Amino acid sequence: MALDSAAATDKYTAQRYTARVALRDHTMRYLHTMIRASDLDATLDFFCAKLGLVEVNRYDSEQGRFTLVFLAAPDDVDHANSTKSPLLEITYNWDAENYDGGRNFGHLAYCVDNIYDVCQRLMNSGVTINRPPRDGHMAFVRSPDGISIELLQDGESLPPQEPWISMENTGSW
Amino acid sequence: MALDSAAATDKYTAQRYTARVALRDHTMRYLHTMIRASDLDATLDFFCAKLGLVEVNRYDSEQGRFTLVFLAAPDDVDHANSTKSPLLEITYNWDAENYDGGRNFGHLAYCVDNIYDVCQRLMNSGVTINRPPRDGHMAFVRSPDGISIELLQDGESLPPQEPWISMENTGSW
Repeated sequence: MALDSAAATDKYTAQRYTARVALRDHTMRYLHTMIRASDLDATLDFFCAKLGLVEVNRYDSEQGRFTLVFLAAPDDVDHANSTKSPLLEITYNWDAENYDGGRNFGHLAYCVDNIYDVCQRLMNSGVTINRPPRDGHMAFVRSPDGISIELLQDGESLPPQEPWISMENTGSW
Repeated sequence: MALDSAAATDKYTAQRYTARVALRDHTMRYLHTMIRASDLDATLDFFCAKLGLVEVNRYDSEQGRFTLVFLAAPDDVDHANSTKSPLLEITYNWDAENYDGGRNFGHLAYCVDNIYDVCQRLMNSGVTINRPPRDGHMAFVRSPDGISIELLQDGESLPPQEPWISMENTGSW
């Protein structure tokens, strides 16, 4: 005798839930941080072409008049199960909006292999390095809509070197 | 003949970098999203006691008069290498500040095993469910400083059920 589909879903869900609860009280996993973009092209140019993230998924809603683009850092995409990569979700509303910033959100942080190379590439493409990596360890830049991005050198700091040592801060981050 | 330590660091860094560049142009990995908290106790009560994240690291700076607390979702902590868990960084400045929100930041999203159980626990502890999980799939709540949190049901949506079906939205998220 076939179960109807609602009952089957109930049973499946109940079995799955019971099995997991046996392991611990409840489970929870980070999925993404969502930011809004007033200009999708400029935002993807910043996060992908300049910073180095990669697009892993995209969804257009004609009815809702918005586009969602999901980005991942290269090392996160390489995970065996890429559906578990921590993602950056970009929401682009088709009807023009400008987005202000607030102080309750601070920044997104990414670890990089060579902070000097990444900052040089960003600078060459016209991005202001708000907090240059004078210490070979940490830098800050901002996205076109003012989202603050922290870059941290993987492992030990690089030896301090020019032009970074002499470069002053610009604005806030 | 011993190398001096700066030269040794240079050599080590150069070797490590060359080895990684051979693999791809550059590597990058997501570390954390940072948010600011005006009341650390209330914020940790929300994110840990009520939502279910766990504290994995903490740093107090007497000189800078701030505390950093790093939180992870339970399933993310279980990774073999917990230093690679995607984290939420809470910055608490000891000198009182109030934090406003902006529209360029949207929300943080977590996947949960049973969205009804999580929302019920949050509601029982006094948290407003701004967007109830009427569809068995998605809910939104806000932290004490107004950071929007999206909760998504892992896998297939749960069958719609009361009290969620009849529960209206509250405020924005």
